[in-house]
Amino acid sequence: MSSKTIILTGDRPTGPLHLGHYVGSLRQRVALQNDYQQFVLVADLQGLTDNGSDPQKIRNNIPEVLADYLAAGIDPSLTTLCLQSALPALAELTVLYMNIVTVARVERNPTVKNEIVQKGFTRTLPVGFLVYPISQAADITAFKASLVPVGDDQLPMIEQTNEIVHKMNSLLPEPVLYHCKALLSETSRLPGIDGNVKMSKSLGNTLLLSASEEVIHRAVHAMYTDANHLKVTDPGQIDGNMVFTYLDAFHPNKVKVAEMKTHYQNGGLGDRTCKNELEVCLQELIAPMRERRATYIQDKGMLMSLLKQGSEKAHEVTQNTLREVKQGLGLPVF
Amino acid sequence: MSSKTIILTGDRPTGPLHLGHYVGSLRQRVALQNDYQQFVLVADLQGLTDNGSDPQKIRNNIPEVLADYLAAGIDPSLTTLCLQSALPALAELTVLYMNIVTVARVERNPTVKNEIVQKGFTRTLPVGFLVYPISQAADITAFKASLVPVGDDQLPMIEQTNEIVHKMNSLLPEPVLYHCKALLSETSRLPGIDGNVKMSKSLGNTLLLSASEEVIHRAVHAMYTDANHLKVTDPGQIDGNMVFTYLDAFHPNKVKVAEMKTHYQNGGLGDRTCKNELEVCLQELIAPMRERRATYIQDKGMLMSLLKQGSEKAHEVTQNTLREVKQGLGLPVF
Repeated sequence: MSSKTIILTGDRPTGPLHLGHYVGSLRQRVALQNDYQQFVLVADLQGLTDNGSDPQKIRNNIPEVLADYLAAGIDPSLTTLCLQSALPALAELTVLYMNIVTVARVERNPTVKNEIVQKGFTRTLPVGFLVYPISQAADITAFKASLVPVGDDQLPMIEQTNEIVHKMNSLLPEPVLYHCKALLSETSRLPGIDGNVKMSKSLGNTLLLSASEEVIHRAVHAMYTDANHLKVTDPGQIDGNMVFTYLDAFHPNKVKVAEMKTHYQNGGLGDRTCKNELEVCLQELIAPMRERRATYIQDKGMLMSLLKQGSEKAHEVTQNTLREVKQGLGLPVF
Repeated sequence: MSSKTIILTGDRPTGPLHLGHYVGSLRQRVALQNDYQQFVLVADLQGLTDNGSDPQKIRNNIPEVLADYLAAGIDPSLTTLCLQSALPALAELTVLYMNIVTVARVERNPTVKNEIVQKGFTRTLPVGFLVYPISQAADITAFKASLVPVGDDQLPMIEQTNEIVHKMNSLLPEPVLYHCKALLSETSRLPGIDGNVKMSKSLGNTLLLSASEEVIHRAVHAMYTDANHLKVTDPGQIDGNMVFTYLDAFHPNKVKVAEMKTHYQNGGLGDRTCKNELEVCLQELIAPMRERRATYIQDKGMLMSLLKQGSEKAHEVTQNTLREVKQGLGLPVF
């Protein structure tokens, strides 16, 4: 294995990816894959933690997510794409780590607490969901990743991972596991096209990487701007103005966006013009992804074969970590 | 694989085995191994659930438990001895099952509730301990065991396993997992030599399979009988009389024990005579086990090699079940 710093990242295959994923992670992964040893984990087991009774949803979305990866520019010769359920070391490390984490500690994890509320789990909370910070720690540490790209809502996960690293290493004759750092993306969360604070499939406010020209057009022109900006000559608000939030996230020319903002704030720049500028930008971004994606998704055999190859490489890496942990604990390794 | 009914049983390697284990399980396993396909699992991972910070204890006791098995008459050509941590399918099935069991359900498991109190866990309860009924369900079902020898305190575990079997099978196109039944042993729980309701290492009231002649002698002669049975000619109580409880559990001649009981109840049979009878019986039982054990424990290489061979066979069986479950869920199997 190369001595490059290792990055672990991934997605739960619960649906095709959208612009929120693009801004929050895909774009960054494409940029990082040249300089880091990057593993992208298709987290099917984690997807099951709150879809335990609907495995078909998870299964069907594995190739969808892979097609999105390739469409966004993730290059499987630079980034290792791998499947969580194909890597037994992840489950085995999860089971080992469960013994050094208390129930009180996972219940106190702010990310888990929030998600329990969001997902409406109360007495129906699946054990797997409560345990998922431990499972995520197993994922990260199995790859010996030192950098984990996450949104700021996931920072408690990194903290808990490092606690497990510390505790487990202290039980071993010499440290095996690596501490990790969060790598926060520039735009950590893209609002939905409806102005909701988060773009999310369940809120129905996404733009998929496969969005058609017409869908993009309609989404952009329905966006909230400034409700008080009635005439073009009126001064307009930037804050909370979705069109400018999106221009910030997607427009390649930051200077131009800055000039537009000033112009808009001073009055004289119409919403229609701004929306047209944004639409051109999104159409140009999405069109090549949509086209590539349409080709890739037709060859699911190729997608799954890529995943198999990557998983074989990942298997070697993760088995190696598991072996070191087991040997360190003194468990027999046959 | 043969079409014999499959039995799964096992022990946590937390210490050498004692007469409580002999009466509660070892004796039965020796009797069952001819008629059933029997797997005995050395549950090192389960041992870690409440020894997470002391892995050395678990590691050191693996050969001790194996030596006890062979000494008690478990024949590795009839019974497959295998190691939990060497079987990744068990961890993988645990992780899958965690998604179909709620936290409320494991918290309600009476066995777990009792053990949490016994072990003094409150806020320090390890996640692994809470999850262990699920892990045990993974063990049982991975082997497709239909019979599980347990004490009556473990009946809720069997119930929970069957709930998981039912739920998981309902998610698969056709049932993969087998329902299981508890096989209660004749003497499900042997009191400690001090009269405590349970023989247990932590209570310091055990007789090990390696107990010396002197230790057996002293244990028997220190046993509680009937505190009101002062003179040989007095009528004596059988109920709660440890010597008769042990005679019931160990004496090969049930008719003789019945006669002794009548005699004792009528008066005229002294405690000393009863204790001598019991001592002869225990000395005869333990001596050959102690001797065999002393030989086996000197060859830990042989013991671990037996465990490795058995684990290879068990690996094949458990991987097969895992593959069927994953395929049934539609997860990719590479």
